[in-house]
Amino acid sequence: MDPSKVNVPPAMNMTIDNITQNTVLINSQAQDPRLTFVLERLVSHVHDFARETRLSSKEWMASIQFLTEVGQMCSDVRQEFILLSDILGLSLLVDSIDHPKPPHSTEGSVLGPFHTHEAEHKENGEAISHDKNGEPLLVLCTIKDSNGKPVEGAKVDIWETDSSGHYDVQYADRDGPDGRVVIKSKEDGSFWFKAIKPVPYPIPHDGPVGKLLQKLHRHAFRPSHMHFMFEKPGYDHLITALYLRGDPYETSDAVFGVKESLLVDLEPADDATATQYHVKPGTLVLKYDFVLVSDKEADDLRDEKSRQALAALGRRVKIIDGLPVPDVD
Amino acid sequence: MDPSKVNVPPAMNMTIDNITQNTVLINSQAQDPRLTFVLERLVSHVHDFARETRLSSKEWMASIQFLTEVGQMCSDVRQEFILLSDILGLSLLVDSIDHPKPPHSTEGSVLGPFHTHEAEHKENGEAISHDKNGEPLLVLCTIKDSNGKPVEGAKVDIWETDSSGHYDVQYADRDGPDGRVVIKSKEDGSFWFKAIKPVPYPIPHDGPVGKLLQKLHRHAFRPSHMHFMFEKPGYDHLITALYLRGDPYETSDAVFGVKESLLVDLEPADDATATQYHVKPGTLVLKYDFVLVSDKEADDLRDEKSRQALAALGRRVKIIDGLPVPDVD
Ligand SMILES: [Fe+2]
Ligand SMILES: [Fe+2]
Repeated sequence: MDPSKVNVPPAMNMTIDNITQNTVLINSQAQDPRLTFVLERLVSHVHDFARETRLSSKEWMASIQFLTEVGQMCSDVRQEFILLSDILGLSLLVDSIDHPKPPHSTEGSVLGPFHTHEAEHKENGEAISHDKNGEPLLVLCTIKDSNGKPVEGAKVDIWETDSSGHYDVQYADRDGPDGRVVIKSKEDGSFWFKAIKPVPYPIPHDGPVGKLLQKLHRHAFRPSHMHFMFEKPGYDHLITALYLRGDPYETSDAVFGVKESLLVDLEPADDATATQYHVKPGTLVLKYDFVLVSDKEADDLRDEKSRQALAALGRRVKIIDGLPVPDVD
Repeated sequence: MDPSKVNVPPAMNMTIDNITQNTVLINSQAQDPRLTFVLERLVSHVHDFARETRLSSKEWMASIQFLTEVGQMCSDVRQEFILLSDILGLSLLVDSIDHPKPPHSTEGSVLGPFHTHEAEHKENGEAISHDKNGEPLLVLCTIKDSNGKPVEGAKVDIWETDSSGHYDVQYADRDGPDGRVVIKSKEDGSFWFKAIKPVPYPIPHDGPVGKLLQKLHRHAFRPSHMHFMFEKPGYDHLITALYLRGDPYETSDAVFGVKESLLVDLEPADDATATQYHVKPGTLVLKYDFVLVSDKEADDLRDEKSRQALAALGRRVKIIDGLPVPDVD
């Protein structure tokens, strides 16, 4: 900004005790109350973190270098900051905040860094993976709303690794998308496709996030899972995943994604199912009934929880565009 | 880490309310109590930030993209994360925490992103800037300890911009270092050199940090200053800067560095001074007497303040290698 066009509240002589209020003040000039509020909380927490830990200059410089490495590890096919957010539990937390679920609806899980926008749109019944080494899996699902009504025409994004635990984008020499697809739900709310049985895999750990996990004596593995994302106008965006019950990493997911309600048991297809869906008898079947939440239900719940959170901060609240800002009137 | 070699505390079903304690727990396996403590506070503050602001998935993704851009802006000669830390007041805060000052010692200021390790070592009296357009400035300084005893042989790192407000590293085609030098203080604690009068300059604002300043309706300028860094075994590392009193940005420094005690008035050299230091009469002179703090003084003060900060958190404290960790015995 041209300095003559801004009106910065005068300040100098910053100390450990006065710098937070001054930084918050100087960040409060924009006419965007949400930005002002988010920056206020950000600065307060970052400063409190430094004050409480007595962060040293050496630790600060190591943090600067760590964040720089995380940024420089990012590319079109690698998002190291999402990995960092994932392993710190932030991704799961933000999903829980932004997509509150009434009882009996499908819970969310972490998006992870491997969703892309290049999946092919396919018809129900097609194969989403071309990995010959994968164990065949038939996936039979339905989508309903909170009233039990089938949801037709929802856009369902599905992605999984190959049998070695790698997503398509992790191969430098890949030809095109694989292990990912977009399907529409049918009139009765059902959708189905052929896939391979998910396997556990380590999140990419050859970068700074992997080094951090090592320092923390944590492993990098995620339990076997398949990702699902649902979009339909009128319904709250649902990002989730289904997890195979009994996986060795079921209770130690590196990114905190597993929920009891998202665990599934695979069963071999009986003859009728095999015939109906054109698979060999005994093929493993994953069945799941998703329940989507309407925008209205999600918005109401989100607003209510926002009001509670700001009240706990001692702030009166206004909801603007679905997000809370302090009410200063 | 090999999963069989770590013992991750089992957890699933993460919610808004239980994810913080579970993340802290899973991060507590390393046998490094300082790392455990820093991560505990980091995760608590990051999660509280999201809970209090009700951070949306869209805002989270915008933050991921912002941090990625900051990282990708960094290069050998550009440190955008330091800029970000600077404009959020974190850099000044960390310096204040790690380098506490008893009364009457020289206060610290921000390092900034422009210090390098390539400055030439020069003798007292030499010129540090070769910018012909700069207004000549004679700099006459002394260094004493808290008892008023001259400090001999201190390594003094000095850096300033050219007359257009740019540091040497900001020129892609530069031949070598300019506007920066390393000098040793003499037996009587004095050091002196020829420089140019500092000018105000905007911090680099063509990257993501500049965009953030713009969004916040803040300008990017720093008031006219010259950087100084002092090192001598037995003395606490001092990073500071001197600021020209009356600068238009004196009370609106984009990075919160100005302190009353670091303001200087330039005076024209009288004939005796001009003769003694081989400058033209009337040349501007900057005089300053620095006071260094001993390691012992700084360590004692730092420990005391660390104990107070952790007591305020309700924690008993042990000091290990000069930094606090909770005492769990
Ligand atoms: Fe995944
Ligand atoms: Fe500077």
